[in-house]
Amino acid sequence: MHKGRLEAFSDGVFAIIITIMVLEIKTPHGTSISDLKPVLPVLLSYLLSFVYVGIYWNNHHHMLYTTKKVNGSVLWANLHLLFWLSLIPFVTAWMDENHFASAPVALYGFVLFMNAMAWLILQKRLICVEGNTSLLALAIGKSVKEKISPILYFIGIAVAFFNPWISILLYIVVALIWLIPDLRIEHSLNKDSQQAN
Amino acid sequence: MHKGRLEAFSDGVFAIIITIMVLEIKTPHGTSISDLKPVLPVLLSYLLSFVYVGIYWNNHHHMLYTTKKVNGSVLWANLHLLFWLSLIPFVTAWMDENHFASAPVALYGFVLFMNAMAWLILQKRLICVEGNTSLLALAIGKSVKEKISPILYFIGIAVAFFNPWISILLYIVVALIWLIPDLRIEHSLNKDSQQAN
Amino acid sequence: MHKGRLEAFSDGVFAIIITIMVLEIKTPHGTSISDLKPVLPVLLSYLLSFVYVGIYWNNHHHMLYTTKKVNGSVLWANLHLLFWLSLIPFVTAWMDENHFASAPVALYGFVLFMNAMAWLILQKRLICVEGNTSLLALAIGKSVKEKISPILYFIGIAVAFFNPWISILLYIVVALIWLIPDLRIEHSLNKDSQQAN
Amino acid sequence: MHKGRLEAFSDGVFAIIITIMVLEIKTPHGTSISDLKPVLPVLLSYLLSFVYVGIYWNNHHHMLYTTKKVNGSVLWANLHLLFWLSLIPFVTAWMDENHFASAPVALYGFVLFMNAMAWLILQKRLICVEGNTSLLALAIGKSVKEKISPILYFIGIAVAFFNPWISILLYIVVALIWLIPDLRIEHSLNKDSQQAN
Repeated sequence: MHKGRLEAFSDGVFAIIITIMVLEIKTPHGTSISDLKPVLPVLLSYLLSFVYVGIYWNNHHHMLYTTKKVNGSVLWANLHLLFWLSLIPFVTAWMDENHFASAPVALYGFVLFMNAMAWLILQKRLICVEGNTSLLALAIGKSVKEKISPILYFIGIAVAFFNPWISILLYIVVALIWLIPDLRIEHSLNKDSQQAN
Repeated sequence: MHKGRLEAFSDGVFAIIITIMVLEIKTPHGTSISDLKPVLPVLLSYLLSFVYVGIYWNNHHHMLYTTKKVNGSVLWANLHLLFWLSLIPFVTAWMDENHFASAPVALYGFVLFMNAMAWLILQKRLICVEGNTSLLALAIGKSVKEKISPILYFIGIAVAFFNPWISILLYIVVALIWLIPDLRIEHSLNKDSQQAN
Repeated sequence: MHKGRLEAFSDGVFAIIITIMVLEIKTPHGTSISDLKPVLPVLLSYLLSFVYVGIYWNNHHHMLYTTKKVNGSVLWANLHLLFWLSLIPFVTAWMDENHFASAPVALYGFVLFMNAMAWLILQKRLICVEGNTSLLALAIGKSVKEKISPILYFIGIAVAFFNPWISILLYIVVALIWLIPDLRIEHSLNKDSQQAN
Repeated sequence: MHKGRLEAFSDGVFAIIITIMVLEIKTPHGTSISDLKPVLPVLLSYLLSFVYVGIYWNNHHHMLYTTKKVNGSVLWANLHLLFWLSLIPFVTAWMDENHFASAPVALYGFVLFMNAMAWLILQKRLICVEGNTSLLALAIGKSVKEKISPILYFIGIAVAFFNPWISILLYIVVALIWLIPDLRIEHSLNKDSQQAN
């Protein structure tokens, strides 16, 4: 089965999620620059969620680039990932409106955690279709990032009930770890094209 | 006529419908985990609608994959299906806000029923264009699911006025029946490619 | 210049406009079927706007199908059309909320009129790029529909201040005239492919 | 790496941003034509933002058309641009609601300024990937528009605190400068194809 429509549909959902969050940002009531101050944390949490969705889109791009075959189970694993991604605007809004209170920050971490799980499931489904000797399977290999992230999210969720700002810091750290595009895949692609030559 | 833009436009509408529903989920007023309790049924009904739209997208993907030709009547049959799909966020919201009262649950079933009808019309239009001996016509063959679903919706609508939860259960049952991607089409595709070899 | 991205971007805007209008439909407050009664006119005006956007998408599909070349002026003529299309949800909402009062119905007609003008401009730009002997120029030929529609809109706008329902009727008539996909283009395409054989 | 998905995703975000702003336009309360008067400035600022997003889409189209290779840094430079573009609906709404007060008009200019910066970064990243002798690098050459725009935005921001209407005028002037599609690229493309012949 062709992967084109899977990519097109996913791109649509990614695009909507990433821009829908702006709708959450309520315009300040006053008209002076200082009236923007309460909007600032909202903007920063929007930025964090924007970067997270961006990371997922970026890696989704990389991962499917190496993929050739797609089947029904991949379609559903992908929809499962999109489901958890689509909850990011909701938890971002709850976190904003309550000035980074404990429970909202913990829930934000939980949704990030579920996204990470959904990502791993999609990866497994793709390797299952492509085979263990495929480019994707080799590229992933020893996935350190995928193993560290859930642990950091988990700590973030627990710590949120003591100091939510440490949780936010942990979420930012995970984002920074991922911000570097999936160099492993790019690396193995380069090696592959060199061998071809 | 080329089917590419039909797919692209449909993917866009599918993507918007599936993510627009998150906008309906209002953030809870409190900041504790227990404040999430009233959001839970909303989330579950969102999940049900998400799965339904996902099923339609999945099968839309399968059905158009086997299609080569598209004409004006197919474009309108497709728009007709998208119209009924676009009403799903509206009925989901009405159902949520009234805690699964009889009328909203019945209307939800009615919209699902109309979607099923619109799906059958689109299928018929496609077979009409492709011909009775086409891959699609053969793959559909004896469509048990397509015949059972409207009946179950119909029962769900009627039962909603006595016990809406039984209706919800019926809608979930139909979703589960469909969740398994259209194996018939995949099966006949495999047979086709084997014969080609 | 390639027309692919013009189509993709337009499909995105069409998809958003057609589904955004559902967001305008406010869920009724009560929980009985009779509470849906005030929603009915809203639904019907949504249906009318849905059909109009559908017609434009359909004909956009047909028109660009016959096009090969695209330049900067076409991109802007297309954006101009999308601008007027994007105002349809706004005027639909104003018409709904005021139970089809004179001014909103007249404004609805005005936006439809401007859409028709924007359509003609886009058509002219495309023929200008493609040349007078192109398939598109021949297919359009003696465009009766394009000439009747603005006149009917014009009458609709004027009549709205006496009886808005006659205006609505006129808008429905124009929609019905267009609902039949652009048979002229399909016809000339068929003739073209027969000559090729 | 293939540029197809970068374009598809960007088109989605562009389409959403350009149509989301209509949602900001609140329908007037009265039902007479004169009730539209307060909506008029809102419509005009929507038109300005629409034209700006249209310009960016148009030039994005032109710029990526000449591009062949794409890498991780380009993906992020593109996301960075989309981030600032996605803030346009927010600042447009704030400006509208406060009848073009000083601070909102200055912030609008600031977001336009950041968009211009993000555009330059994306351009640099692309030339870096494509090489200094690429079509894109030659086409950009002596970029007068890119250098004048930030200066005009800067003046606009400063002037907003004295007379916001002069700022708006400056923003309109920049829009008009850009409205003419990137003729430099089209020109060098033509020369290129003539040399090829």
